[in-house]
Amino acid sequence: MATIKEVAKQAGVSVATVSRVLNETGYVHEDTRAKVNQAIQHLHYTPNEVARSLFKRKSKLIGLLLPDITNPYFPELARGVEDRMQESNYRLIFGNSDEDEHKERDYIQTFVQNNVVGVISSTNDPNAVSYSKLKIPVVFLDRTSDDKPSVFADGREGGRIAAQEMVRRGSRGIVIQRGPQQVRPAQDRFLGAMEVLESAPGVTVDIMQNASFSYNEAVQGAKELFEKFPQTDGIIASNDIAGAALLHEALRLNKRIPEDVQIIGFDDIPLSSLVYPPLSTIRQPAYEMGREAAELLIQFIENNLVAQHKIQLPVSFMERGTTRKVD
Amino acid sequence: MATIKEVAKQAGVSVATVSRVLNETGYVHEDTRAKVNQAIQHLHYTPNEVARSLFKRKSKLIGLLLPDITNPYFPELARGVEDRMQESNYRLIFGNSDEDEHKERDYIQTFVQNNVVGVISSTNDPNAVSYSKLKIPVVFLDRTSDDKPSVFADGREGGRIAAQEMVRRGSRGIVIQRGPQQVRPAQDRFLGAMEVLESAPGVTVDIMQNASFSYNEAVQGAKELFEKFPQTDGIIASNDIAGAALLHEALRLNKRIPEDVQIIGFDDIPLSSLVYPPLSTIRQPAYEMGREAAELLIQFIENNLVAQHKIQLPVSFMERGTTRKVD
Repeated sequence: MATIKEVAKQAGVSVATVSRVLNETGYVHEDTRAKVNQAIQHLHYTPNEVARSLFKRKSKLIGLLLPDITNPYFPELARGVEDRMQESNYRLIFGNSDEDEHKERDYIQTFVQNNVVGVISSTNDPNAVSYSKLKIPVVFLDRTSDDKPSVFADGREGGRIAAQEMVRRGSRGIVIQRGPQQVRPAQDRFLGAMEVLESAPGVTVDIMQNASFSYNEAVQGAKELFEKFPQTDGIIASNDIAGAALLHEALRLNKRIPEDVQIIGFDDIPLSSLVYPPLSTIRQPAYEMGREAAELLIQFIENNLVAQHKIQLPVSFMERGTTRKVD
Repeated sequence: MATIKEVAKQAGVSVATVSRVLNETGYVHEDTRAKVNQAIQHLHYTPNEVARSLFKRKSKLIGLLLPDITNPYFPELARGVEDRMQESNYRLIFGNSDEDEHKERDYIQTFVQNNVVGVISSTNDPNAVSYSKLKIPVVFLDRTSDDKPSVFADGREGGRIAAQEMVRRGSRGIVIQRGPQQVRPAQDRFLGAMEVLESAPGVTVDIMQNASFSYNEAVQGAKELFEKFPQTDGIIASNDIAGAALLHEALRLNKRIPEDVQIIGFDDIPLSSLVYPPLSTIRQPAYEMGREAAELLIQFIENNLVAQHKIQLPVSFMERGTTRKVD
């Protein structure tokens, strides 16, 4: 690989001049700049990013922290972030926090040690000291914060829509799965659904609590739900994995879907259309949310004026095979 | 955050001495070392990893390149890699190549620019010049290479097992989905299955080609397969996503599973047990493969003697609801 010395020699200038061109600092005559750029191209010279980052105190690295990439909602977010970052030549240092605050703190610390210029995090605790003491911009993704930049979907409205569709399509004995207590978007959905169902005439509502969003919990939760409420004719699942597990259990119990029980999921992960019948769900635009978070962070890093610090994306009902048809 | 100067002051030594302790270079008296370490602990000093990496010419960063994290097989690999790396304090710079050679080359280049000390890659072209000219260790994951370190599952045996189980459980008009041509593990499975079926008495074999492993392709491929071979009584899917799409389409066509058609997938992603009936499949231990690749790379980075450069992990048949019961 070519060195900066070889570039300087080929261009007939000093190493300092090459450095000024590379770092866009100080005055360089236009002809000289052209000569240096020619030499760079000719020798396929690529500057060492680490040396650059020390010199400019700026790297092109971003820290991305997600709860768990094996939950199929998060890869969509991650792809959105990465694709937008890629367009502006930023690279991601990536970590899974497992929603463990020690692991989260540890990752944030190593992000800083590696001179990241910004952080995107899906954390349950945006007010944690690990974030507030950071001297670089942070964008919270899929999580809201009262006073910090964040990108999220309208979970409350999503919960309302799920409940309205459930009632409108004829369910009267409805069970709501309440997602993990510490995951705020899950609580927003729950509250939105409750808001509608509490005032819906002739509807009874029961609540089942999920402790986590893991696969095992989804399978176990589905079994318990039908044991406790065998007569339910409508379930608002805490997310699509839970919804798929409920569909599985309902079919295993020989229930007809959607005639006997309607099920509505949340997220619209690719799996939702693959199960049979395909899962009706509330779509969150996860990929777009990832892109928006990346865009917002880039604006902060590049010191641009940012009008909107909180970006809420809309949700929508995806009508598929686990809800009844109406006019 | 504490600086190296403050550590030196507190320990009553020079900055150079603190640096020698941190970098484990040169002689430092045991008592002095103890004093420095006490000061480091007391002040919660954490060295800047970038400065360290320039000085020692070693970072704690690894580049991880996967085709596409939104394909649910890859997050399992990624988690395995990350969890093992985390244990040894390595961090991952992560990229999706989309199996695009330009994107792949670009990522490898920026990995190098950020001073990664090793690379793990799932590439279709381990012989690409981007890899051969790297001066740091590379481990190929989920892909085999004739002469380079790699960790992979026994795809050929997986294909054989799928075919044997299909025949043993009574299918006679079998369709094999052949995965994308450029993905070698997919071809290994195909060849393994063909090996068994070509010599199976009374069995007819047909082949359908998949151009990619995308969701859309899986859905489209399933429709086309049943249009072309409506009478098939057994399908060896190219992976679990394709298997789930085939199951979906078969149920939509009112076929009884597994009575009318048996389906066997490949991978054993979490989705496979969630669909109904749950998908019988050939399990690849993806998480363990990720861990093994990380382990192997760490051994190379730390210059340990490595006995085994190619690690092949076993596959196994997961009997679920899309295959018939036999004694």
